[in-house]
Amino acid sequence: MSQLIQRPTLEDMRLSPGKKARLYQLLYKYGPANGTLLVLPIDQGLEHGPRDFLDAPEAADPDFQFRIALEGPYSAIAVQIGLAERYYPEYAGRVPLVLKLNGKTEIPSDEAPISPLNATVEDAVRLGALAVGYTLYVGSPRQDEDFAQFRKVREDADRYGMPIIVWSYPRGAAIEAKGGKDTVYAVDYAARTAAELGADIIKLNVPNVDPEKLARAPKAYQRPWTVEEAVRQVIRSAGRSMVIFAGGERGSIDNTLQKAALCMDAGATGLIFGRNVWQRSYSDALTVTRSVSDLMKRYGR
Amino acid sequence: MSQLIQRPTLEDMRLSPGKKARLYQLLYKYGPANGTLLVLPIDQGLEHGPRDFLDAPEAADPDFQFRIALEGPYSAIAVQIGLAERYYPEYAGRVPLVLKLNGKTEIPSDEAPISPLNATVEDAVRLGALAVGYTLYVGSPRQDEDFAQFRKVREDADRYGMPIIVWSYPRGAAIEAKGGKDTVYAVDYAARTAAELGADIIKLNVPNVDPEKLARAPKAYQRPWTVEEAVRQVIRSAGRSMVIFAGGERGSIDNTLQKAALCMDAGATGLIFGRNVWQRSYSDALTVTRSVSDLMKRYGR
Amino acid sequence: MSQLIQRPTLEDMRLSPGKKARLYQLLYKYGPANGTLLVLPIDQGLEHGPRDFLDAPEAADPDFQFRIALEGPYSAIAVQIGLAERYYPEYAGRVPLVLKLNGKTEIPSDEAPISPLNATVEDAVRLGALAVGYTLYVGSPRQDEDFAQFRKVREDADRYGMPIIVWSYPRGAAIEAKGGKDTVYAVDYAARTAAELGADIIKLNVPNVDPEKLARAPKAYQRPWTVEEAVRQVIRSAGRSMVIFAGGERGSIDNTLQKAALCMDAGATGLIFGRNVWQRSYSDALTVTRSVSDLMKRYGR
Amino acid sequence: MSQLIQRPTLEDMRLSPGKKARLYQLLYKYGPANGTLLVLPIDQGLEHGPRDFLDAPEAADPDFQFRIALEGPYSAIAVQIGLAERYYPEYAGRVPLVLKLNGKTEIPSDEAPISPLNATVEDAVRLGALAVGYTLYVGSPRQDEDFAQFRKVREDADRYGMPIIVWSYPRGAAIEAKGGKDTVYAVDYAARTAAELGADIIKLNVPNVDPEKLARAPKAYQRPWTVEEAVRQVIRSAGRSMVIFAGGERGSIDNTLQKAALCMDAGATGLIFGRNVWQRSYSDALTVTRSVSDLMKRYGR
Amino acid sequence: MSQLIQRPTLEDMRLSPGKKARLYQLLYKYGPANGTLLVLPIDQGLEHGPRDFLDAPEAADPDFQFRIALEGPYSAIAVQIGLAERYYPEYAGRVPLVLKLNGKTEIPSDEAPISPLNATVEDAVRLGALAVGYTLYVGSPRQDEDFAQFRKVREDADRYGMPIIVWSYPRGAAIEAKGGKDTVYAVDYAARTAAELGADIIKLNVPNVDPEKLARAPKAYQRPWTVEEAVRQVIRSAGRSMVIFAGGERGSIDNTLQKAALCMDAGATGLIFGRNVWQRSYSDALTVTRSVSDLMKRYGR
Repeated sequence: MSQLIQRPTLEDMRLSPGKKARLYQLLYKYGPANGTLLVLPIDQGLEHGPRDFLDAPEAADPDFQFRIALEGPYSAIAVQIGLAERYYPEYAGRVPLVLKLNGKTEIPSDEAPISPLNATVEDAVRLGALAVGYTLYVGSPRQDEDFAQFRKVREDADRYGMPIIVWSYPRGAAIEAKGGKDTVYAVDYAARTAAELGADIIKLNVPNVDPEKLARAPKAYQRPWTVEEAVRQVIRSAGRSMVIFAGGERGSIDNTLQKAALCMDAGATGLIFGRNVWQRSYSDALTVTRSVSDLMKRYGR
Repeated sequence: MSQLIQRPTLEDMRLSPGKKARLYQLLYKYGPANGTLLVLPIDQGLEHGPRDFLDAPEAADPDFQFRIALEGPYSAIAVQIGLAERYYPEYAGRVPLVLKLNGKTEIPSDEAPISPLNATVEDAVRLGALAVGYTLYVGSPRQDEDFAQFRKVREDADRYGMPIIVWSYPRGAAIEAKGGKDTVYAVDYAARTAAELGADIIKLNVPNVDPEKLARAPKAYQRPWTVEEAVRQVIRSAGRSMVIFAGGERGSIDNTLQKAALCMDAGATGLIFGRNVWQRSYSDALTVTRSVSDLMKRYGR
Repeated sequence: MSQLIQRPTLEDMRLSPGKKARLYQLLYKYGPANGTLLVLPIDQGLEHGPRDFLDAPEAADPDFQFRIALEGPYSAIAVQIGLAERYYPEYAGRVPLVLKLNGKTEIPSDEAPISPLNATVEDAVRLGALAVGYTLYVGSPRQDEDFAQFRKVREDADRYGMPIIVWSYPRGAAIEAKGGKDTVYAVDYAARTAAELGADIIKLNVPNVDPEKLARAPKAYQRPWTVEEAVRQVIRSAGRSMVIFAGGERGSIDNTLQKAALCMDAGATGLIFGRNVWQRSYSDALTVTRSVSDLMKRYGR
Repeated sequence: MSQLIQRPTLEDMRLSPGKKARLYQLLYKYGPANGTLLVLPIDQGLEHGPRDFLDAPEAADPDFQFRIALEGPYSAIAVQIGLAERYYPEYAGRVPLVLKLNGKTEIPSDEAPISPLNATVEDAVRLGALAVGYTLYVGSPRQDEDFAQFRKVREDADRYGMPIIVWSYPRGAAIEAKGGKDTVYAVDYAARTAAELGADIIKLNVPNVDPEKLARAPKAYQRPWTVEEAVRQVIRSAGRSMVIFAGGERGSIDNTLQKAALCMDAGATGLIFGRNVWQRSYSDALTVTRSVSDLMKRYGR
Repeated sequence: MSQLIQRPTLEDMRLSPGKKARLYQLLYKYGPANGTLLVLPIDQGLEHGPRDFLDAPEAADPDFQFRIALEGPYSAIAVQIGLAERYYPEYAGRVPLVLKLNGKTEIPSDEAPISPLNATVEDAVRLGALAVGYTLYVGSPRQDEDFAQFRKVREDADRYGMPIIVWSYPRGAAIEAKGGKDTVYAVDYAARTAAELGADIIKLNVPNVDPEKLARAPKAYQRPWTVEEAVRQVIRSAGRSMVIFAGGERGSIDNTLQKAALCMDAGATGLIFGRNVWQRSYSDALTVTRSVSDLMKRYGR
């Protein structure tokens, strides 16, 4: 497991012209523009509710995130349909849009999650988006419905040449029983599943290497893992799909940069930073962004 | 959280021409006609059953509410398809129609509510309605079905340029476990959810600021709230969607006016009064209406 | 609650030309032909099974009911698709057909009933029916599915100008918990619900005024009711939809006539008699029919 | 209940030309060809699994049943789509095909059965079938889904003029609680239900007249029944739909013939024999067939 | 049960021209090319997760399996849509593709499995596949949904002349209760079920002949079985559908060859080897492949 993983090129991915044209813009025309991806998501208002904004009240106005995405500059901003309709028009063309197609609140039980479609690939085409986002709950007792729902999205995306970013999340009661959503086992399976189903880009969380939790995972995973190995492993399982890693909750800038470097070194194509950026003041958000952007420059291709 | 919230203008909302034309009429051609909204709903016959009319027998005849809406004048009357078909024809053009697309009785358990579609956007177009209404049960164990159902309504509304008013109600067992449907947490999440999914106007209840109930909500909400702050907060979470507040059960006129002023001051676009109006005699109903209308005049724009 | 309820006229109902033309025939060209309705249903073979015929073996042959309907004469006969296809052809034009679109057996549990569609409005059009029938289980835990199913029927009926008679039945575990299907509360809610969803004619059972059962209904209903008041109340809740009352199980002719007069006096548009008629010999069935017809003559308009 | 039941004629059934043309062939051009039906089913490989063939290994090859059907000659052979595609081609035209549209294995619980569609009426048209078969589980907790599924089959069959044979089986937990699937109550209700929903031919099992089991059925059935009376009763409940009776498990030839005569005397249109025929050697199977055919000659019309 | 089973010829199968043309290529133009089939599946990354690759890291890169399939040469490689899109293009035409249409992770409970569609027959046509694969869980409590889903696949496959390989797996709680998924009873029923529903080729596991487990199966199976007899039995139950057997987990080469010979002798048309091949180094994988290929030469026709 010590081989070097190379991130896939656009050629490696055997994309249709439409997907290739759009991904090319995300990789080379916006944000770092050097073949890496830096994405700003603002779907937390739906996924977590406004609680994420109570201590960062500027963030409650979605225009705040759009301004950061433009100024960053970020490769794209990822939002649900409601915000896209109201806030994207004045940024159209200046910052790419990733239309998040499904989403849910965190209120009901998470035992058997599924994220319903709130928008379609056609909405994304109409709005000039360069990609769509889809949250897949790998391992949920309702994954059969999720796969079926995803299939229709994939078919539409094929029809319109629209790249798909899969937020691939291990979830549900069975995942909890096998060590939880953050083990290398869980993230690894999620990475492969998204690749098997046809994701172009896969958004993953950095696995946690707590051996106690891993003890409940299948035997093959019962070995010592460093975070580096774990990250390389999940990127390997994504095959020729690009991987971007989440920044997760707000942490220190140094930790954030360190984790970002680790991921990029391991073969990630990019990063997706939300709360870690916009739960700060506008100027602090841009400072963090600049540090990350500087880091990304080392990974141009 | 003390910033002044400005209610969104039609320009802020980036509406399609069809939606803009219809909302313009609701805001500037009917009712207060000064950019505010005053809506009269009569869907309680379905939602609560005829019990709401037993002590106000005039109200059992839907023509009573239509007469009040016209005489008020109200910006619109909101009804289900059955009443629209039978009672709206003689008021067509004289008072705007909001066709409520879904609804249910209160008889079955409210643990996992969903409000089924009883009519379509096409019905609304055919009847000359200026908006459709949709009840969304945020946090219900069946919210995945609800979101999916709403998506189709949104798509149809986009196709026909029909504004959507979302009755955004936190509901279901998980909401009860987190302090109930009236906490600022619950209403706030409902406001943002409706905005994320693409509501044009969001109908909310005024949050209750009972700290005991709020104690079961997420930590970020564990702070002292005045009603004013709570109302401003939920309006802020609605972003560029307009907010109208419900009057709820019949109370004293003074209380009603006071609450109405508080909402409008906080940035609401309008009010929706049902039982508080039509559970009175015709002349009392018009007296209350006139007081509220007078109040609304202060908020013209 | 002592006002006189007038039954709605065809003009009151604001019907489309197709619905009006068909209802006109039912009201003025067949049966009593004086603006009242007298309907003979034979869907009990499905709803109850052949047990209803074991002590009245002539009734097991559906032609028996068709002959009674023609000879009565009844305003219409209401049957499911299977009987319509096999027995209606020789009566076509001579007695109107109400095609019952949904139905079920009484075998499975009645905790959460829904009545599945066995035929469509198009079948009714093809067979020359003058109305369709739909059984709605108001308050059932599955009422969301029921409302959604009804919506499609309503849309088809709108498309073809076909009147809808809703058999509006309070049912399911929650109704049982609130006093059962026969309280004035339950029937009243069922009447309003059918009207809200767009029924043209509503078939109701005469409420029972047992105060003990009503004690479990909402507070507003906790008052003394006579049967007359209860019947007037549920007719009032039906608004501008016509109401027809069921005869229920076979009883004495005097009781039947008395109940019929009470309903018509209270504002009903008609009656629907099944077992009370065809669980008798042919000549007895016609004798009862003649008595009821004579009664109906007093209510012409 | 002692009246003579006449089996329905093609004229009685008011069939469309397509249905009539196909039924005519089944009744008068193949098999006994005298207006009776003798059907050979081989769907047990799906419904029971290969266990039915372990002691009759020739029967495991479906060609065995096709040869018997041709040689019999039988009025038709009834099979699922897989066997129809592989084995019918060489018999096409020489023996009629009844395409069984739904089916299931007996492995999962039978508490709430439904038989899913494995083929369509269009498949039957394409293969030149003269009828389709549908298994209806009357009384199953899932009968609502079953009725809805059947409705689509009926509509397709109407569109293409394809006769429908309904295997009408009382089943599920509620049937068990009321005395089981073989009481005259259960079979009687199943017969009427199939007729109400639009079956052209109804396949029934001969009721069992065990008074102990019947004791749990509705009161009206609490009377002494002979098998003859029970068979007449269920045929009467089928109305103008033809009835064919199943032979059930393999028994003695004498018993089989006796039961067959009883059914035909009571007004059945035909018989359907499976295991009783093909769980024998080829020559024994033809011997039984010849005896039954001889019997059928007495019922020509 | 000692008769010799002949594997079906293309003529026996009565295939449409499109199916025949494609199957002909699989049988006579690729792999052993002598009328037998040797298939390499790489869907384990989805079905089991990456755990299958942790001790064979080369296998984590799907290109590894594609190289083996080409070099083998194998009759086809079977993969899900995601891998087909990314890895098949450079092998297109040189090695046949079997597009696996459904699949799931092993994470959720296996009590009531169903494998959701991740791709369609149209995807297979577009990619130039020569067959599609479908996993059917015979006996699952959700088999009704599975059969319905399969029906649509079969219809599409008929429309496009695309052969269907059914991975026919006995599964679910009821199968466990009857002795588990590996008894001759379970595999036998699965074989017949796939044939009844219209499979062209059926992938089975070699039954286990543990009498203790079989004791819970239906009585007819309570007899002594050798593995040879069991394999012949399940092939017989597949009728005119071809059977290929799985190699299962990695074992010794000698055992593998012995089992392979037993299956081919018993009338199998081919073999499907996954982990047994690609959980080895590239050269070891080709060594095993060569031994199996040599064996297959004895079964040409």
